[in-house]
Amino acid sequence: MTSNICENMLIQELTKRFDRSPDQRNAVHETDAEIITISDSCTIAMTTDSIAEEISTGLYRDPYLAGWMAVMVNMSDLAAVGARQMGIVMSEVLPRNYSENDREELQRGIAEACRKCETFVLGGDTNVGDQLLLSGTALGTCPGGRFLSRKGTQPGDFLFCTGTLGIGNAFAAQALLGQDANPSNRINYLPSARLHESRTLLEYASACMDSSDGVLATLDQMMRLNGAGFDLRSDWESALDQQSKEFALSAGIPPWLLLAGEHGEFELLFTVPQSRVREMYDQAENDDWQPMFLGRVRSKPAISFMLYGENTLVDTGMIRNIASTTDGNIREYLDNLLKVDSAIRKGALHHGNDGSV
Amino acid sequence: MTSNICENMLIQELTKRFDRSPDQRNAVHETDAEIITISDSCTIAMTTDSIAEEISTGLYRDPYLAGWMAVMVNMSDLAAVGARQMGIVMSEVLPRNYSENDREELQRGIAEACRKCETFVLGGDTNVGDQLLLSGTALGTCPGGRFLSRKGTQPGDFLFCTGTLGIGNAFAAQALLGQDANPSNRINYLPSARLHESRTLLEYASACMDSSDGVLATLDQMMRLNGAGFDLRSDWESALDQQSKEFALSAGIPPWLLLAGEHGEFELLFTVPQSRVREMYDQAENDDWQPMFLGRVRSKPAISFMLYGENTLVDTGMIRNIASTTDGNIREYLDNLLKVDSAIRKGALHHGNDGSV
Repeated sequence: MTSNICENMLIQELTKRFDRSPDQRNAVHETDAEIITISDSCTIAMTTDSIAEEISTGLYRDPYLAGWMAVMVNMSDLAAVGARQMGIVMSEVLPRNYSENDREELQRGIAEACRKCETFVLGGDTNVGDQLLLSGTALGTCPGGRFLSRKGTQPGDFLFCTGTLGIGNAFAAQALLGQDANPSNRINYLPSARLHESRTLLEYASACMDSSDGVLATLDQMMRLNGAGFDLRSDWESALDQQSKEFALSAGIPPWLLLAGEHGEFELLFTVPQSRVREMYDQAENDDWQPMFLGRVRSKPAISFMLYGENTLVDTGMIRNIASTTDGNIREYLDNLLKVDSAIRKGALHHGNDGSV
Repeated sequence: MTSNICENMLIQELTKRFDRSPDQRNAVHETDAEIITISDSCTIAMTTDSIAEEISTGLYRDPYLAGWMAVMVNMSDLAAVGARQMGIVMSEVLPRNYSENDREELQRGIAEACRKCETFVLGGDTNVGDQLLLSGTALGTCPGGRFLSRKGTQPGDFLFCTGTLGIGNAFAAQALLGQDANPSNRINYLPSARLHESRTLLEYASACMDSSDGVLATLDQMMRLNGAGFDLRSDWESALDQQSKEFALSAGIPPWLLLAGEHGEFELLFTVPQSRVREMYDQAENDDWQPMFLGRVRSKPAISFMLYGENTLVDTGMIRNIASTTDGNIREYLDNLLKVDSAIRKGALHHGNDGSV
């Protein structure tokens, strides 16, 4: 069922010729990082992720942010499998005539993101090209050979996240709409990988995935892998980042689209069996963080939440595929999301609600 | 002394802000891959290398070759540290409107290079961009925590390579000069990482580095790291790949420039203490391969070989920096190399030789 999604299809297409390593513990799609057994006592996690489209579309104009994100997207994948960060290697394509200041800021972003994650740049490679491009590959260890997977959730499990949601899409929408000129209203997007929290999760989560592609895309992928769906809690809006929600309302963007867009907040979405929820809360408190309850796992593979006064099944697969069909045109992408909202709102009206948010 | 080289300076500049991991066993520049201690019984090697300029300059027009090389350049780095290949993760930026056939060929190149190396694609990341760009990150293990370094050679050591030299630069020159139209004369450049040979070397080599940037650049880097130089054997030309040498002669390119250019052949260059040379030869024969003697290590940090009838000290640092100053313009790069040759030839004439090759 993962094959209905354009991105999954591309991955399947690209990997069909490749043989699978006998030392690899995860199947394609099933984990945020690759899990490799080196020896009986040594299992590592490895993941690669590039910052390309975010730069070419102008979203990461700030070299510091580009450098920071090149580290964080990879560290977030390590967090999502519960691995301990060992470091990252970084392949950089620097534009011809890149200014010294931009290069300094880029490297500062990389260095400070590593410090934030208590990790290290282990090595790298540099090329010159037409455009800035950053590819990171992070390395982690899996103590005791244990790791978190996207698969393993059961109906009845509780769904949580590690922090407030929506800031990734609010940041992207604000930049796209040109409303980020005033520093006092600017959404300060600088996510931190949830490495600390993931150590708690390794003990309790039945499934885990980071929200790098936005919340609904994450839930959609987990739904497809587990053959189970999610009912979000009725007051899901209280899980939204407050400033992001205020921005959305002021910009005429329905707040639920902060979950639908594909520019993520790099929180962990995870499920916990009901019987272990109490203990998980206690352990998280011991570990000095607060899980945020988000909903329940349902047996039917669909994602539902309250929209315009109605419990609505949202076609998350269709929403995910919008990005593939609009091919990097962010304005068209947002317009398509607004059309989906419009159809849902009309449906709600049709069913007798007044359509107010 | 590594700081006199533009590329080394850039690396120093880019990494100056980064903290060093306490688990990292190698210093910057000293190994072809990063060596990381995971635990007492687990040491891994990791290396990242991109295929960018070779694509943008048109040298790797063939998607199969681009895919093949993206694997091989990284596997060659694992070979140079004596690591056992576990696999590779691949970050691909595919051009918008890349044809299905090109994509197939690219993936076939990656898959077949992995099979050739008896290794696996472990994972990856795909983006869409203006231009094809491939970044690989290879993972290997270091059994017993042992690895080969570029540093450790002593005056008197013997210098070897794992195979014939010059094919990388012959291929590049032929393509640049537009002389690759006739398939029967075309130089078939498809290097294989010397992973098998490197297992022998782990026992015997005092230093090792792959010739990814060409032979003289490799020797130059080893010279700077070791504070020792190299005298090539007087009949060094017999170490050249035969077809490459014939091409060079027919194209009016002095054969020694096949060592000077920066498009490498991905052989290993390594040194062995004199006392262990005999045993190394025997073990290599057992392991079914033949080391090629190339010269001796000298105490003075300089690189000398017979050119135009004279034992010539070649300014390899200056030659390495030509690439940085010609900024991707291959024609200008070759012209600059030819000027260096011309100056050496005149010097030889001045000293009374007739300048014939």
